[in-house]
Amino acid sequence: MKLYSYWRSSCSWRVRIALAYKKQTYEYRAVHLVQDGGHQHKIEHIQKNPMRQVPSLVLDDGTVLNQSLAIIQFLESIVPSPNLLGTTSKEQARVWELSEIINAGTQPLQNLSVLQHVQREHDLDKINWGRHFITIGLDALEARTKPFSYKFCARDEVSLADLCLIPQLYNARRFSCDMERWPTLLEIESRCEQIPEFIQAHPSQQPDAVL
Amino acid sequence: MKLYSYWRSSCSWRVRIALAYKKQTYEYRAVHLVQDGGHQHKIEHIQKNPMRQVPSLVLDDGTVLNQSLAIIQFLESIVPSPNLLGTTSKEQARVWELSEIINAGTQPLQNLSVLQHVQREHDLDKINWGRHFITIGLDALEARTKPFSYKFCARDEVSLADLCLIPQLYNARRFSCDMERWPTLLEIESRCEQIPEFIQAHPSQQPDAVL
Repeated sequence: MKLYSYWRSSCSWRVRIALAYKKQTYEYRAVHLVQDGGHQHKIEHIQKNPMRQVPSLVLDDGTVLNQSLAIIQFLESIVPSPNLLGTTSKEQARVWELSEIINAGTQPLQNLSVLQHVQREHDLDKINWGRHFITIGLDALEARTKPFSYKFCARDEVSLADLCLIPQLYNARRFSCDMERWPTLLEIESRCEQIPEFIQAHPSQQPDAVL
Repeated sequence: MKLYSYWRSSCSWRVRIALAYKKQTYEYRAVHLVQDGGHQHKIEHIQKNPMRQVPSLVLDDGTVLNQSLAIIQFLESIVPSPNLLGTTSKEQARVWELSEIINAGTQPLQNLSVLQHVQREHDLDKINWGRHFITIGLDALEARTKPFSYKFCARDEVSLADLCLIPQLYNARRFSCDMERWPTLLEIESRCEQIPEFIQAHPSQQPDAVL
């Protein structure tokens, strides 16, 4: 498999954690989102991913999969263990709800293309913009996580929700959010930071990292 | 079950179609998103849904489920037939990818709270804003749908991707998008419009509809 990724892309990061959990080897293909105006706008990338985003996962038969949660759902389907999507119906619903609070409710409002749009087209402060929406999303995630007192977001085991949380907290720091609003999420983060699958998927460990 | 919904909310609409396919009866609880500054901001709603959005589905045992795709995934889990999420791993991946192009890539950038933010905080034209992002999302969906020539978005049967598409096309018209860009999607829409489950879930058929 080939993973089209960018070291600091939070959605690519989610998939890298899942690939580590599923013990899948893959060829890392860096797509530089900033250099030369952004390599995601090159025709060969658009043909795979017309949203002009990463990640894309290309299977050995040439099948192209886009959207990080769709890719992780595919990996869970072909390698069910360790389980990342929950076991009971209600646990699965909680995993998906918390994941979508990040995936649909938070990250899309602070991704690169939106930040470039608010800055270039509307001359807005992109840091304030991003901080506003990250705060709304993580406030909601904290509120939906805290009452259950699990070790991780949705249960006592790691799930997709944690794969979404960790990169979003990294982004929250880049936007200078007030991290003290989210004590439950930070406690979960400190647990995840000890786990090999999370460590190897970190941006700093990627071949295209610029540190 | 109780569905907290608003007639014109595209995410509530997705869930209403799924509830119809799964033949689930439910109590319809209208949450007026505009009246009195928006009933989604009332404390009793925030306690269920801290993102201050609809839909929320409350089960008979009091369990609260948020996020439309998480709710639909739950419904699929408790009532597997008719299948809405795909049968093979690759079909499931395609269903989720196309669904997330709308759910994460398009709708979040033109939902009510974002439009209010760009208009009230930044004095931007919310129609132009919404049209810009809907066009990007539906262009990508057209590009990822057309080559496969299925009767519906992801296969020859209805799937979650179609439940996401139909409300998004309705929104595209509200934002005066150039609909002629998406002939494949419009053909799929014309098939969906004939299906009883789609007809009964339409905004115009809801108890809180204002026509």
